[in-house]
Amino acid sequence: MTTNMDYISLLIWGAAGAAVLYGLALIWWVLRLPTGSEKMMEIASAIQQGAAAYLVRQYKVVAVVAAIIAFLISQFLDLNSALGFLVGAVASALAGLIGMLVAVRANIRCTEAAKNGLPRAFEVAYKGGTVTGFLVVGLALAAVYGFYQYTHDVNALVSLGFGASLISVFARLGGGIYTKGADVGTDMVGKVEAGIPEDDPRNPGVIADLVGDNVGDDAGMAADVFETYVVTAVAAILLGQLYAFPGQPQLAINYPLSLMAGAIFASIAGSLFVKLKGRSIMGTLYKGLVISTAIAVLVFFAVTRLLIGSENLSYFYSTLLGLLVTAGMMVITEYYTGTKYDPVKHIAHASQTGHGTNVIAGLAVSLQSTFAPIILISAATFFAFNLAGLYGIALAVVAMLSLAGIVVAIDAFGPITDNAGGIAEMSGLPKKVRDVTDPLDAVGNTTKAVTKGYAIASAGLAALVLFAVYSQSLGADVVFSLSEPNVLIGLFIGGALPYLFASFAMEAVGKAGGAVVEEVRRQFRTIKGIMTGEAKPDYAACVSIVTQAAQREMLVPTLIPILAPIVVALFLGPLALGGMLIGLITTGLFVAISMTTGGAAWDNAKKYIEAGNLGGKGSFAHQAAVTGDTVGDPYKDTAGPAINPMIKVANIVALLLVPFLK
Amino acid sequence: MTTNMDYISLLIWGAAGAAVLYGLALIWWVLRLPTGSEKMMEIASAIQQGAAAYLVRQYKVVAVVAAIIAFLISQFLDLNSALGFLVGAVASALAGLIGMLVAVRANIRCTEAAKNGLPRAFEVAYKGGTVTGFLVVGLALAAVYGFYQYTHDVNALVSLGFGASLISVFARLGGGIYTKGADVGTDMVGKVEAGIPEDDPRNPGVIADLVGDNVGDDAGMAADVFETYVVTAVAAILLGQLYAFPGQPQLAINYPLSLMAGAIFASIAGSLFVKLKGRSIMGTLYKGLVISTAIAVLVFFAVTRLLIGSENLSYFYSTLLGLLVTAGMMVITEYYTGTKYDPVKHIAHASQTGHGTNVIAGLAVSLQSTFAPIILISAATFFAFNLAGLYGIALAVVAMLSLAGIVVAIDAFGPITDNAGGIAEMSGLPKKVRDVTDPLDAVGNTTKAVTKGYAIASAGLAALVLFAVYSQSLGADVVFSLSEPNVLIGLFIGGALPYLFASFAMEAVGKAGGAVVEEVRRQFRTIKGIMTGEAKPDYAACVSIVTQAAQREMLVPTLIPILAPIVVALFLGPLALGGMLIGLITTGLFVAISMTTGGAAWDNAKKYIEAGNLGGKGSFAHQAAVTGDTVGDPYKDTAGPAINPMIKVANIVALLLVPFLK
Repeated sequence: MTTNMDYISLLIWGAAGAAVLYGLALIWWVLRLPTGSEKMMEIASAIQQGAAAYLVRQYKVVAVVAAIIAFLISQFLDLNSALGFLVGAVASALAGLIGMLVAVRANIRCTEAAKNGLPRAFEVAYKGGTVTGFLVVGLALAAVYGFYQYTHDVNALVSLGFGASLISVFARLGGGIYTKGADVGTDMVGKVEAGIPEDDPRNPGVIADLVGDNVGDDAGMAADVFETYVVTAVAAILLGQLYAFPGQPQLAINYPLSLMAGAIFASIAGSLFVKLKGRSIMGTLYKGLVISTAIAVLVFFAVTRLLIGSENLSYFYSTLLGLLVTAGMMVITEYYTGTKYDPVKHIAHASQTGHGTNVIAGLAVSLQSTFAPIILISAATFFAFNLAGLYGIALAVVAMLSLAGIVVAIDAFGPITDNAGGIAEMSGLPKKVRDVTDPLDAVGNTTKAVTKGYAIASAGLAALVLFAVYSQSLGADVVFSLSEPNVLIGLFIGGALPYLFASFAMEAVGKAGGAVVEEVRRQFRTIKGIMTGEAKPDYAACVSIVTQAAQREMLVPTLIPILAPIVVALFLGPLALGGMLIGLITTGLFVAISMTTGGAAWDNAKKYIEAGNLGGKGSFAHQAAVTGDTVGDPYKDTAGPAINPMIKVANIVALLLVPFLK
Repeated sequence: MTTNMDYISLLIWGAAGAAVLYGLALIWWVLRLPTGSEKMMEIASAIQQGAAAYLVRQYKVVAVVAAIIAFLISQFLDLNSALGFLVGAVASALAGLIGMLVAVRANIRCTEAAKNGLPRAFEVAYKGGTVTGFLVVGLALAAVYGFYQYTHDVNALVSLGFGASLISVFARLGGGIYTKGADVGTDMVGKVEAGIPEDDPRNPGVIADLVGDNVGDDAGMAADVFETYVVTAVAAILLGQLYAFPGQPQLAINYPLSLMAGAIFASIAGSLFVKLKGRSIMGTLYKGLVISTAIAVLVFFAVTRLLIGSENLSYFYSTLLGLLVTAGMMVITEYYTGTKYDPVKHIAHASQTGHGTNVIAGLAVSLQSTFAPIILISAATFFAFNLAGLYGIALAVVAMLSLAGIVVAIDAFGPITDNAGGIAEMSGLPKKVRDVTDPLDAVGNTTKAVTKGYAIASAGLAALVLFAVYSQSLGADVVFSLSEPNVLIGLFIGGALPYLFASFAMEAVGKAGGAVVEEVRRQFRTIKGIMTGEAKPDYAACVSIVTQAAQREMLVPTLIPILAPIVVALFLGPLALGGMLIGLITTGLFVAISMTTGGAAWDNAKKYIEAGNLGGKGSFAHQAAVTGDTVGDPYKDTAGPAINPMIKVANIVALLLVPFLK
């Protein structure tokens, strides 16, 4: 057994190390690439400074909050837990930080590479995004396994998850407010009032907008998936100890982490196949994912046979369900957000009769897009439970998250290509460069939507597993019966939280956007020669304003998922808290899916018209579609995705409260 | 005891009779009023014909569906149940039918009365609306009590509720599609394309639009509240027999129905105080409600002492909670939809920066507006349960519904004043007439929103009570535990249904509106002289098109709440069905509240600007506000309110399935 254990330890550390090394190798590769002209450098450096300014300010706020929470944990729980909390927070912050610093350096190199054609530009963007993906899984796996090896304290792992959660909720919400505040504000004055195109260097908000893409889709997504990865691993370990492998604590740790470790090797292997031949960018990205998945299946089978034995393959089948959910969510999201399919075309057609009908059609699609994902998640839950009980559900989520490295890579590819196009536009590069970056950007929009579907489904399922741990930890005599009014009340209160939170997030974008509008107007008014290109706008002022607005607006809503469980537990007790968690997961899933999918559908309906359909750019339909896109922006990039960490945070906080509730 | 019983029988029959007689007396009073000029008569008669055409077609469809369901009930349950189903359906249809026929006759008389000033016009509109209110409560009480006296079969009462449900879901959804299809379609061609004002006689869709107001806010609301009234009474009776008064079946019937009967007298008394002095229309309406409530409190106390005894006043306190929820919902809804308060002003201000920001602000308000109502409903549930268990919750809802007579009167007042203004506009009456009808119409908009809040809260709570009956009927060994995956899956599926249903409803309005647009364009194109007023448009063609569209589009979505419980029970069993009911109630409440409140807030933000604020009519802000209003239309008048019957229908169907699930 000891030898076996050593091999497993080697596998897990090896995988975490391989992921981090792979990430570092890619950083080395990216940074050696040429950076282009001085003009391009100037713009890229403004983006880099803006990103750094945002990160510094964000982490300052987070550090204060984290210090307070760590202190409280050390007082109310124990030192191990406080340490775990800090490890989780630091590891998550590190993954986001490095990933983003690389992304804002890969962008200009992607623009430069675009001069040599599509395949080369694609390679730069993809490799730049892959850094984030593999740092996420590598650091997450190392944090969970390393911390357990050091402390052998499984309860403190929950605090580690909470540390990751804290970073996640701040990154998703702060990043979402930043990116859409900058986007909406910049567009409203630039496109609508001044009549200048997107990414025009005369617009003072344009750098903030380019920074925002990295902040939202790179750092935000990374922190979100990091959190899901960690809490899924922790929940699977706890459920394994309580339920699947009682009396075998080491097996409860080794089995899920070995699955995740094996899948890292599978993802690296799949990632090596991502090489653009021909023009199907999306197909190339999916090829990497499909190969990773296929190898992961073999790895899951091998790990299960090795650790569990061959007589019981139900665990293996449960992991397959997780992979099916990943594939299913991607197919469904692509259907609802792709320009080839009916929903987006329907919104585009509705734009012909005006702003109102565009919005009505978009809302209808947004509402409808929740149905198939919920049925998929329900079906997976049903079959996983019937295969292997609650632990089967946990394994399905473990399998989903195990491929996070390559999934995040596909997502983080988006902001790099978006920035690359922006840099090309701003530095006045020839049209052939944009002809390379534009299709990359379009694919980036789809991958961002599709990976958001994955992030939500995995967050929802991970939260369900956390709830299962909460429920099991309280003991068999605590039954969350729907006939118990406290459970029902908890369910209602929990259900209300995503609505309240989303409302705050939407408002925050409005306020941040309004601040940008005022600043851009001020610069247009006071800096002579901006519009003729003789004077340079003050980009840094806009960056600073959005950064401040994002920090200010994110504080109150982030407290909701942290304080609500404590308040409910205090006044209504553990039954109401359980109801609250499920209510939060339920409406949270609907709000998050409807917002992210609906928002992306609105975005692509505009793009469909801009591609020359239904009158094309500048037509009446296009104006209406721009309205839909504006509405969709905070939907898909702020409120919707920020629901994910909210769902998980509340569940993690509830787990931390268990010792006091017993 | 027998004497006591006779008195109670007298009280209940007396109240039902008084309500119906009061309604009939008001009909007699309204019909005797002068109807104005021939021009006015012509318009009013077109509205009357349109309303009749809609009702005939609607009831034809309903009759076929009802006949099939009645047959199925007679086969699978028993003859009593089939009979109960028909009684419920016919009584509900009758209340809606008579109420609406009176409303489309009160409208012209209100216009005529407006020539003599505000108080007289107010009186006509209020009395016209009161007909619907008191027919609803009178016929509902008579149906429940009379049917029980005839059959003494308490289970068949559930089918009676189902009959009312069927009418309700058709009336709410069909009416909602009709009213907003006509409204959106007529406005889009008239206001936007042809540039003619609202209610302009040259617009071929204008009669359909005026008919629509009656169809939606009169017949739809009447059927919805009728249903809630009946199912609440039935659920309270069943819960009384199972839980509060085991072995005393007659007391279980008499107590809730006596409360409801007493409140009818209180409502009639309060209604007599509704006389406009000064200019506070809203204040006058609320005065009637407050007096009714005060008298109802005394009546509830007396009835409780008489039937239950003075030692246990917890039942009485539970009824007070119901009255508090009614008041609370009204205050909250008025805050979120009134032009005096921040939310509406916020949407209006956001309109200054464009269509997109108007919609974002509206959606944020819409999301936020769910929070306070849910906390109110949760608090009422908590306290009622702690006072008197599940039966306490039932009594709170009984108390809420007991005042339905005067609440519906306040709501049904709206379409009459709206129509009165339309008739004045179309027949070219002097401005002083519109100066009377316009403020009435504005108040009507607020009362429509406020009573919708009441309708949703009562529907949600009634559905919770139905769930309690479902749960109790299955026996104590069936526990709907949230740790049971089937319950969770049911919860998710149930949660998905309001989203799917609302999506269908939004789309249906789009389709119906599109059909109207085409027809109006066709008439503008082919009938020469329409725009100069020389030729009359073909109003009936538009009426017929919306009527058909409404019938066609409502069929599939109405099947959702009827078939979903059967399918889930069949494939996943009673636990999943229980989860489904709660999931449906939970997300249903959020979707319905956010849509109805958000929609009304958008509407009033437009009105706030039209009142001369932020640039007034024709300004850029106004254009953006018109977009918000267009989006809010299907939100507040189609999808949102149609969720109410959906929630109740599914719960009633589940109750009918209990014998097969055991």
